[in-house]
Amino acid sequence: MKLIRFGSIGAEKPGVQLDNGTRLDVSEFISDYSEDFFGGDGIAKLKDWLEKNERNCPVVSEDVRLGSPLVRPSKIVCVGLNYAKHAAESGMAIPKEPVLFFKATSAIVGPNDDVIIPKNSEKSDWEVELAVVIGKKASYVEEKDAYDHIAGYVLHNDYSERAFQIEKEGQWCKGKGCDTFAPLGPFIATADEIKDPNNLNLWLKLNGEKIQDSNTSDFIFNIQEVVSYISQFMTLLPGDIISTGTPSGVGLGFNPPKYLKAGDVVELGIEGLGSSKQLAKAY
Amino acid sequence: MKLIRFGSIGAEKPGVQLDNGTRLDVSEFISDYSEDFFGGDGIAKLKDWLEKNERNCPVVSEDVRLGSPLVRPSKIVCVGLNYAKHAAESGMAIPKEPVLFFKATSAIVGPNDDVIIPKNSEKSDWEVELAVVIGKKASYVEEKDAYDHIAGYVLHNDYSERAFQIEKEGQWCKGKGCDTFAPLGPFIATADEIKDPNNLNLWLKLNGEKIQDSNTSDFIFNIQEVVSYISQFMTLLPGDIISTGTPSGVGLGFNPPKYLKAGDVVELGIEGLGSSKQLAKAY
Repeated sequence: MKLIRFGSIGAEKPGVQLDNGTRLDVSEFISDYSEDFFGGDGIAKLKDWLEKNERNCPVVSEDVRLGSPLVRPSKIVCVGLNYAKHAAESGMAIPKEPVLFFKATSAIVGPNDDVIIPKNSEKSDWEVELAVVIGKKASYVEEKDAYDHIAGYVLHNDYSERAFQIEKEGQWCKGKGCDTFAPLGPFIATADEIKDPNNLNLWLKLNGEKIQDSNTSDFIFNIQEVVSYISQFMTLLPGDIISTGTPSGVGLGFNPPKYLKAGDVVELGIEGLGSSKQLAKAY
Repeated sequence: MKLIRFGSIGAEKPGVQLDNGTRLDVSEFISDYSEDFFGGDGIAKLKDWLEKNERNCPVVSEDVRLGSPLVRPSKIVCVGLNYAKHAAESGMAIPKEPVLFFKATSAIVGPNDDVIIPKNSEKSDWEVELAVVIGKKASYVEEKDAYDHIAGYVLHNDYSERAFQIEKEGQWCKGKGCDTFAPLGPFIATADEIKDPNNLNLWLKLNGEKIQDSNTSDFIFNIQEVVSYISQFMTLLPGDIISTGTPSGVGLGFNPPKYLKAGDVVELGIEGLGSSKQLAKAY
């Protein structure tokens, strides 16, 4: 299944997107895609309900806005420098174990919402990433059991202000948590839809030119390793997001670097997870 | 007012603690201390309601567990190295601007819940901190307006696993987000109760011995500066927590360092914000 949320900001309703592209409103059956939904076997229950009730679900018009396909989770845990070429373009060594950081959940927006360049930003950058949605509490999980804890996958653009992230005192969060810096979607593909998350093409275009173009088979740490590793430090809750890192082609890696300007259009996609598009606007 | 939440884990109800220590159940009036509560002028409404209804509120028995005094917020933003002596004991330079990091909100527990030493941890440490609770959305706020965005203050123990935080690859989050590493409470003191948050005594005892003992007047960056600074990078939402850093006396600063062992008792307090107590247990 493909889970979507649709409607105006702050008033999104849950829906599903069928294989033919039709979007259906399922808010009669569930209130939202929340921690309770994912943790309460909601995907299986929704699938059962849909088999009987699909015909009666209201169709959502194509011009209705898509929101993030899940409610704000407890955390977004990101893996840094998880593709070798991206580590090189960032001037960083290949990590011996996953580099982790948190992204503010208040940065989450819909897949096609505008990205707002923050005040005083001169180095806002893009990062196409495969994100994992947790389906079951994960604490001290072994790699062989990692997939049992995954509800699905979603496209994420991990926008990053490089000056805020790297040139200021301390940790990366100043450049990773800015408002609108986490467009998620268009949909969550439930785990059964993605045969091998460690072998998916992903790409990003800036104003029509493809500048990120890679495959998750280039991961330094694959999905199972990352889920297991994070769960050694903290419990991942249902609905939590793990964003697995970006391949080379970010603005920071160009010579000279390229950064977002108002009016730029960023499009990105992952095999099986659809595509999204953000227009950059100045604050 | 002093806001509390009481009851078993995951089933907490909202209450208030009177100046004589009596705890009242106010769940008849509000469902919980959430983003909607703080953002919807809930404190003022609750105060009005209490004036008329205090006599009818059920009394909460003293032996009922206290939970965190607010619902899991969108984020906990922490200020690192915000007392000069603590920066020195950590072997770090005094920062020129606030050092920020995120703590996982899944680490939040009640003020007197056990602290669980994670598997493979040998360097679990304590940090008494004054935490700010945001009352009104804060984006690009000036220092002079910072107090308008504060709902209240709460005692926080920013537990930190130093090996996970500092000796592993990447960012601090591995050692800051462990489960049970953010006991909050006993209560939120609403802003009107605290005359000057930049002049409060705070202390922490390990097994009865006072090892942190300072005053927030030693802040490198005061409350107004911190609220304004963070709001330049991301929007603070109602209910969000800012933890303002710890004074000297953490385990890392001893020679040789001292770290938590199962059976240790940690007690801490801040003037006007009560005290909390955690028993350390091994995972």
